Amino acid sequence: MPAIAQEAGSGDVLMLAWMNRDALARTAETGEAHYWSRSRRRIWHKGEESGHVQKVRELRLDCDADAVLLQVEQAGGIACHTGHERCFFRKLDNGRWVETEPVAKDPQAIYGKK
Amino acid sequence: MPAIAQEAGSGDVLMLAWMNRDALARTAETGEAHYWSRSRRRIWHKGEESGHVQKVRELRLDCDADAVLLQVEQAGGIACHTGHERCFFRKLDNGRWVETEPVAKDPQAIYGKK
Repeated sequence: MPAIAQEAGSGDVLMLAWMNRDALARTAETGEAHYWSRSRRRIWHKGEESGHVQKVRELRLDCDADAVLLQVEQAGGIACHTGHERCFFRKLDNGRWVETEPVAKDPQAIYGKK
Repeated sequence: MPAIAQEAGSGDVLMLAWMNRDALARTAETGEAHYWSRSRRRIWHKGEESGHVQKVRELRLDCDADAVLLQVEQAGGIACHTGHERCFFRKLDNGRWVETEPVAKDPQAIYGKK
């Protein structure tokens, strides 16, 4: 199911990822966000490569029990693999998606050259 | 794709729903949230029955272009079909989901008896 990560301090919605039962259980146990990677088909400890882990302050469930909301503290201040602070860095402006925020850190510096 | 509605004033995440291209286009055109109802398999103008429409202040797209974030003004202050202000009214507390917020308005009073 979809899982929304919201920065506890600012209230900014950082990203949307996916969870299965196992990811939710590990998140609750460890206090750090774990998601289900649909592309890699495995549990993914957010920040395992980048160090940008998410400390979970609160976990919420929606009315239909098919979406989760996480209040997190985002380590490094960067949630997105593109190096943006959050994944929602484009907004609709006169029918076009425009970037509103710069890359905070070069992804190559976060993940190393590959 | 998943669409997150966030109350523009408070920053509260109200609900998670779904959009297809058509729902997104109608939302952009009308300035009111339209979603794709997976159960009813049709476009759904949020608030069409309840009057609890969502005026859209901003539309954002995520890095992979597969999730949308809406900043909205929630008419009536109630986003959830259960009568709660928001769908995320349960939080995890010692391994159990507990309701943290009361029903703001009886759903029967919102939708009428059926």
